[in-house]
Amino acid sequence: MLHIFLLFSLIFTSTNVLAQDFCVANTASGIVTPSGYPCIMEANVTSDDFAFSGLGVPGNTSNIISAAVTPAFVGQYPAVNGLGLSAARLDLAPGGVIPMHTHPGANELLYVVHGHITCGFISSANKVYLKTLKRGDVMVFPQGLLHFQINAAGKRPSLAIVTFSSPSPGLQILDFALFANDLPSSLLEKSTFLDDAQVKKLKGVLGGTG
Amino acid sequence: MLHIFLLFSLIFTSTNVLAQDFCVANTASGIVTPSGYPCIMEANVTSDDFAFSGLGVPGNTSNIISAAVTPAFVGQYPAVNGLGLSAARLDLAPGGVIPMHTHPGANELLYVVHGHITCGFISSANKVYLKTLKRGDVMVFPQGLLHFQINAAGKRPSLAIVTFSSPSPGLQILDFALFANDLPSSLLEKSTFLDDAQVKKLKGVLGGTG
Amino acid sequence: MLHIFLLFSLIFTSTNVLAQDFCVANTASGIVTPSGYPCIMEANVTSDDFAFSGLGVPGNTSNIISAAVTPAFVGQYPAVNGLGLSAARLDLAPGGVIPMHTHPGANELLYVVHGHITCGFISSANKVYLKTLKRGDVMVFPQGLLHFQINAAGKRPSLAIVTFSSPSPGLQILDFALFANDLPSSLLEKSTFLDDAQVKKLKGVLGGTG
Amino acid sequence: MLHIFLLFSLIFTSTNVLAQDFCVANTASGIVTPSGYPCIMEANVTSDDFAFSGLGVPGNTSNIISAAVTPAFVGQYPAVNGLGLSAARLDLAPGGVIPMHTHPGANELLYVVHGHITCGFISSANKVYLKTLKRGDVMVFPQGLLHFQINAAGKRPSLAIVTFSSPSPGLQILDFALFANDLPSSLLEKSTFLDDAQVKKLKGVLGGTG
Amino acid sequence: MLHIFLLFSLIFTSTNVLAQDFCVANTASGIVTPSGYPCIMEANVTSDDFAFSGLGVPGNTSNIISAAVTPAFVGQYPAVNGLGLSAARLDLAPGGVIPMHTHPGANELLYVVHGHITCGFISSANKVYLKTLKRGDVMVFPQGLLHFQINAAGKRPSLAIVTFSSPSPGLQILDFALFANDLPSSLLEKSTFLDDAQVKKLKGVLGGTG
Amino acid sequence: MLHIFLLFSLIFTSTNVLAQDFCVANTASGIVTPSGYPCIMEANVTSDDFAFSGLGVPGNTSNIISAAVTPAFVGQYPAVNGLGLSAARLDLAPGGVIPMHTHPGANELLYVVHGHITCGFISSANKVYLKTLKRGDVMVFPQGLLHFQINAAGKRPSLAIVTFSSPSPGLQILDFALFANDLPSSLLEKSTFLDDAQVKKLKGVLGGTG
Repeated sequence: MLHIFLLFSLIFTSTNVLAQDFCVANTASGIVTPSGYPCIMEANVTSDDFAFSGLGVPGNTSNIISAAVTPAFVGQYPAVNGLGLSAARLDLAPGGVIPMHTHPGANELLYVVHGHITCGFISSANKVYLKTLKRGDVMVFPQGLLHFQINAAGKRPSLAIVTFSSPSPGLQILDFALFANDLPSSLLEKSTFLDDAQVKKLKGVLGGTG
Repeated sequence: MLHIFLLFSLIFTSTNVLAQDFCVANTASGIVTPSGYPCIMEANVTSDDFAFSGLGVPGNTSNIISAAVTPAFVGQYPAVNGLGLSAARLDLAPGGVIPMHTHPGANELLYVVHGHITCGFISSANKVYLKTLKRGDVMVFPQGLLHFQINAAGKRPSLAIVTFSSPSPGLQILDFALFANDLPSSLLEKSTFLDDAQVKKLKGVLGGTG
Repeated sequence: MLHIFLLFSLIFTSTNVLAQDFCVANTASGIVTPSGYPCIMEANVTSDDFAFSGLGVPGNTSNIISAAVTPAFVGQYPAVNGLGLSAARLDLAPGGVIPMHTHPGANELLYVVHGHITCGFISSANKVYLKTLKRGDVMVFPQGLLHFQINAAGKRPSLAIVTFSSPSPGLQILDFALFANDLPSSLLEKSTFLDDAQVKKLKGVLGGTG
Repeated sequence: MLHIFLLFSLIFTSTNVLAQDFCVANTASGIVTPSGYPCIMEANVTSDDFAFSGLGVPGNTSNIISAAVTPAFVGQYPAVNGLGLSAARLDLAPGGVIPMHTHPGANELLYVVHGHITCGFISSANKVYLKTLKRGDVMVFPQGLLHFQINAAGKRPSLAIVTFSSPSPGLQILDFALFANDLPSSLLEKSTFLDDAQVKKLKGVLGGTG
Repeated sequence: MLHIFLLFSLIFTSTNVLAQDFCVANTASGIVTPSGYPCIMEANVTSDDFAFSGLGVPGNTSNIISAAVTPAFVGQYPAVNGLGLSAARLDLAPGGVIPMHTHPGANELLYVVHGHITCGFISSANKVYLKTLKRGDVMVFPQGLLHFQINAAGKRPSLAIVTFSSPSPGLQILDFALFANDLPSSLLEKSTFLDDAQVKKLKGVLGGTG
Repeated sequence: MLHIFLLFSLIFTSTNVLAQDFCVANTASGIVTPSGYPCIMEANVTSDDFAFSGLGVPGNTSNIISAAVTPAFVGQYPAVNGLGLSAARLDLAPGGVIPMHTHPGANELLYVVHGHITCGFISSANKVYLKTLKRGDVMVFPQGLLHFQINAAGKRPSLAIVTFSSPSPGLQILDFALFANDLPSSLLEKSTFLDDAQVKKLKGVLGGTG
């Protein structure tokens, strides 16, 4: 009965028929397109490409925000290329906060691994959706809307895993976008109504010029 | 030779074969789905549904920002439903500014009808892309990124027409999102690093509470 | 300065301009389309709609597979409608196994909350990608491919959270698909090469007929 | 061992988890959206919904073009709703021709069941791609481009089955679009450079006015 | 009047304006992306690229399944690249069967060219949709669901042409996925509930190890 | 407080996390995929890439159609790559006409900058949607449908800006498609019902052969 195998093989020529179940990113090719990176040849793909251990390592929260974001976007985790998914780890030490930010390219789903986290997002209608989540809870943050996460576990840390509807969700942190570049203060103040003193202070802290 | 017509008609039954070249929104149905509104029945669609005159009327710029936005999104212009396009008119009086904002659901292309406009957007990498455009110039603003437009025509007004890659691009104006709702000041300050005085001042101006 | 608020309001008419940041499913409408469910009216949406606590409750693993799947698909968690994301909780007691299955409509990303889990999937080229994951590891399973998860934590339970690239990923469990319905045994045997005795045995266990 | 079945059932609640493998169109609902028709409830779907016999019946080619098109679009074949596919049957009697036309909403793949068919399409670069196909050959026609099919089997009929990349590909037959409506002849002549006599003649044949 | 041509040419510069009606795959480039292969330069594309004769050749059914599958996926038929369509030919000799399989990346539409074919698929709800088709009938098989085709023409062969909603639908044949690789028998048995004897027998036949 | 900046930087590694807000086309790479061109490296992108001045220059209307089309498609304006948008300028001198044409790959939105323009499109149901637009009006033309624009401003010129739902909308001008290539007159006449004299005349004017 061995010929089943042989005859099947004749019929379904594997290299041509069975293409593109996945497209592990060749991030070293120097090429990226609107749909993502070119694929590593399937013959060179191994189990190790599909798994990723980077989210198992706590981020360093010894900083002013007492928090850390560890991404598993396509740049770190090439297996998500073309799959419409990526992830990140949020470590929130006591008092920690992931500052107001948006993901221009993806919806987000947050899962609380441990602790309590106060999460909020603001809609186009300027309505605030605010919720304090406990271990095991999930919450979604629609694409492109301002949102933030604040540790609500008192003296204990909190941990969340977030996933995105894109391998490359992008990340625009409001303070960095406004104050950590060379956007002239006059334009910034005109377009945000922030006071000159406030702008100068935060530019000073975040390294902005202009 | 009239029977060409008759015989064709027998073959290509028009009501069933020739469906859904377009889907003019029935915004009164009370139904909206992730793909948009239900379609008005084709038999009830007329030429007038496809044209829209609202962008020909100057917006009222007698306000603090000396500017006005007149949308032709699916809510105002039902013909764009399902077409991956919409538009808006930007009137900028002398000194006018369209404040820092994002469109969570669409890329934008701006065309300067007359005047000069200084346009800027900020990327996820916090880099500022800034350009002063003259009559006839176009510029694109990628989805979900903070951007603004400021009249640069001195004592003359400027006019721009913008189009979007979605019938429902959304619009999140930074100051309104931060200061025109009930997001508690403590959470706002923690997540934005803005000073309490600055927050209170802008909440006062924009009607925010909390 | 209050008039900033008033004048802005005149310009950006909120109900029409600011549509469709999200589309919380109205699962009670009796309507579902290829793009998902109709949206609940935004005025009726609250913070509680975006959060979901069902994944915080351990599944009942007192069963033959010593495992449980708790979904947060659009049917359970209406906020994911139209967002290209959903989630589920996998509880694996000692010896537990999530049997061979596919998701016809989504890619999957698994995160190990605690324990060790042996995960495998099989490609169109019939290659097996097998990996034992530890706490904090993630792995992706491409759309439509057979895969399984087996507890590898010895006498301890394991817990994983999985997310999908669709609000409605579907789930086809191989044994149920083959043996828990009325597909005539003759057709089943002809199309799977399984022995009649094997088919009858599993049909008996799983309630299949024919 | 029967409890495998019972316990599985407790875990995977079928009505909620296992949604939307398909979406057979409810064409009688009076609702259609940009993504297609609402779905018939899965409980009411039967095997008969997925099969369609209409393409097995030869079209009536006793007409001026000696040809017939029998569609299996979503209007005739509701099972293709949301599936990104539909089909049609082309009957070409001796001398038969499917006149110059486009499908505004889909790519097309043609398969010759029997006979010989001369097929051509014209690109945006005005290049003609022309080929005479024999039984068993296939050819693709990219979306929105003018194309035609002509029987090349001499005194024998030809038969083709075409499939489309959309459940609702649309169909714009050039002569009907130009000459079978009330588009004023002056506008038609100005925009096509056709002579007045030619326009009047074909309007006469096809029932056009204006 | 020749200047119409010349003046038009000045205006619509063909090489830049008229891009990308189609994207015939350059399968020799060594590059493939999530959206498909790079395109052959349009200047090098000919009519022959759009036509394909491979489906006109009967497959060799002198094998255990008395059947053959001849694909016209993007690997064999580069013109379908980016078009959301591909095709295959199914030859079923008397007693022939296309074994239980899935297409992870596409919906399928089957057309019976001659003969009778019993077709079935199984939904996420484990319901069987079964139908015996005759010449000219079509049937759809939703993406990712298990399905099979069996010759029902008695002593005569049957022939079907299938089309897919993707240029690269993938193909996972259940028996090959389970028994024709190195997936350890212990994991396979645990995840499928198949008996060890059954697994060993089919691994023997199909060349599996482990 | 400078360490906010430093510590943030440690956490959000910019080059990997913050990818692909946009994808300015590298049109010189010799590569194009179904999703568009490869991206220029973000480090090499400047403000000038996002702005485009080509639409500010009036087209030369000293031609038979007294009109000109100036495109800002991805070939001319690489910033629109992957953004689902592009644009063009239509200059219509007195008596000017943009002849009957289709865009096989995009919906279109037209804005009248000055003058009056009579616009029309024809649906799959052969219904004509006709409208004379004035300054400031917009109109949409659904994908793939025949449409035209004619100056209706008497002795004054008109100007329109059009935008498309694709960076590469394509453009098939009916007269060029029919008469400016080597499509044999016999096939053309058979498939369009145009008289031989008419075909020969327009082939003569437009340079067609065959």
